[in-house]
Amino acid sequence: MTHYDKILFGDKMITSLDNPKIKYLQKLSQAKNRKKEARFVVEGKHLVEEARKLDLLIEAYSIDDIPNYTQISKAVMEKICNTDTVISEIGLCKMLSDDKISNKVLILDAIQDPGNMGTLMRSAVAFGFNTIVLGEGCVDIYNPKVIRSSQGAIFKLNFLNKNLLEFLPTISKYKIYGTDVVNGVELDNIIAYKNIAIVLGNEGNGISKEVKNLIKENIYIPMLNTESLNVSVAGSIIMYKLRG
Amino acid sequence: MTHYDKILFGDKMITSLDNPKIKYLQKLSQAKNRKKEARFVVEGKHLVEEARKLDLLIEAYSIDDIPNYTQISKAVMEKICNTDTVISEIGLCKMLSDDKISNKVLILDAIQDPGNMGTLMRSAVAFGFNTIVLGEGCVDIYNPKVIRSSQGAIFKLNFLNKNLLEFLPTISKYKIYGTDVVNGVELDNIIAYKNIAIVLGNEGNGISKEVKNLIKENIYIPMLNTESLNVSVAGSIIMYKLRG
Repeated sequence: MTHYDKILFGDKMITSLDNPKIKYLQKLSQAKNRKKEARFVVEGKHLVEEARKLDLLIEAYSIDDIPNYTQISKAVMEKICNTDTVISEIGLCKMLSDDKISNKVLILDAIQDPGNMGTLMRSAVAFGFNTIVLGEGCVDIYNPKVIRSSQGAIFKLNFLNKNLLEFLPTISKYKIYGTDVVNGVELDNIIAYKNIAIVLGNEGNGISKEVKNLIKENIYIPMLNTESLNVSVAGSIIMYKLRG
Repeated sequence: MTHYDKILFGDKMITSLDNPKIKYLQKLSQAKNRKKEARFVVEGKHLVEEARKLDLLIEAYSIDDIPNYTQISKAVMEKICNTDTVISEIGLCKMLSDDKISNKVLILDAIQDPGNMGTLMRSAVAFGFNTIVLGEGCVDIYNPKVIRSSQGAIFKLNFLNKNLLEFLPTISKYKIYGTDVVNGVELDNIIAYKNIAIVLGNEGNGISKEVKNLIKENIYIPMLNTESLNVSVAGSIIMYKLRG
């Protein structure tokens, strides 16, 4: 509906939680529904407009009466967003996935923290790891917290959900590196092959034993002591070093 | 009280919120009280024992009857911790600060996210940036969320609270680097001087204008596009590269 339509037909602000569009948006607060529908919601004008630019936007909603946005009441917006902070714009977006994988791939084995996931996405875009393979046990990437910390990187990456035990043997033309402090090659000595896959493991437990068995070489990041790094930092340092 | 004492004098589990020790612990949930008392609380046996090893522990508390811990009831523990997850052990710790600063220094200008702060601490320990200077507007480092994500790094660093406009001119023997994508030297071309100070800015706004005016050189991290990095990732990559 254009601004002109609104003048002709009156204000059509959605105020009811029973409105089918609102019901649909609320349904998408659950990961299983997002997956089934291949749709997700982003918060904030910046992300909505980013989605629009990339042709991933289905419909935009605002609590204000602005062009190209469907107006909804503040109470309805609060019900959809379920956050403490006031959000004025949201966008309904479509998920895309492509089986073609990039030369540099990031493989995640049960990364659970939304902040870590979002941070890894930003770094992956920055350093050209344009495909992210999500093993079982990873946090849902369309979780609002992940989207928030990804800062738009979510639109610029190709995501594949895979069973890593089945997937790893299919990418034999890639040099696959795990991360291991004890049994690894120092990052400074790693050669930047054309096709590289980096495997990162769970925040508490690292890479699972079964996945480890499929990895022949590990990288370690030189440190001055036995301190460990946050997984999103470790992954980002490795991607920075092997970028391209 | 030893285990033997307990046998002699009976079980002394604290069950009342009016107990002065418990009142004191609860008081420390507020940043201003932590600062005034120079005391803070850590959660989890791992951190408590780390503090004990480094002689920073004043008293340890547990919901279980174990040696070297004062037993408190589960209800009391829940009141102190105020988290969703069950915590069995906490420790009352003292803050330390030393005016002597290390050769490699991390300077933070209004870092507000607890996760970013904790992550930067871990990386600072790993890469030998043993002094962290906290400018105004930084999240309180003794905030439970920061401590959790610092994973013990909080005990291994020297923290100084400073007004950065006054502090920066006092470290003229340090090479001071800001971070700036537009107006900087590529990280790969930075020389690892003996005395280096890295300044990182606020998540949303970067380094404040006034602080920027005091910085002569900036570093930028080469990226494949205009994507920005999470500040804790950017800081960690720089510290990794200039470690020592």
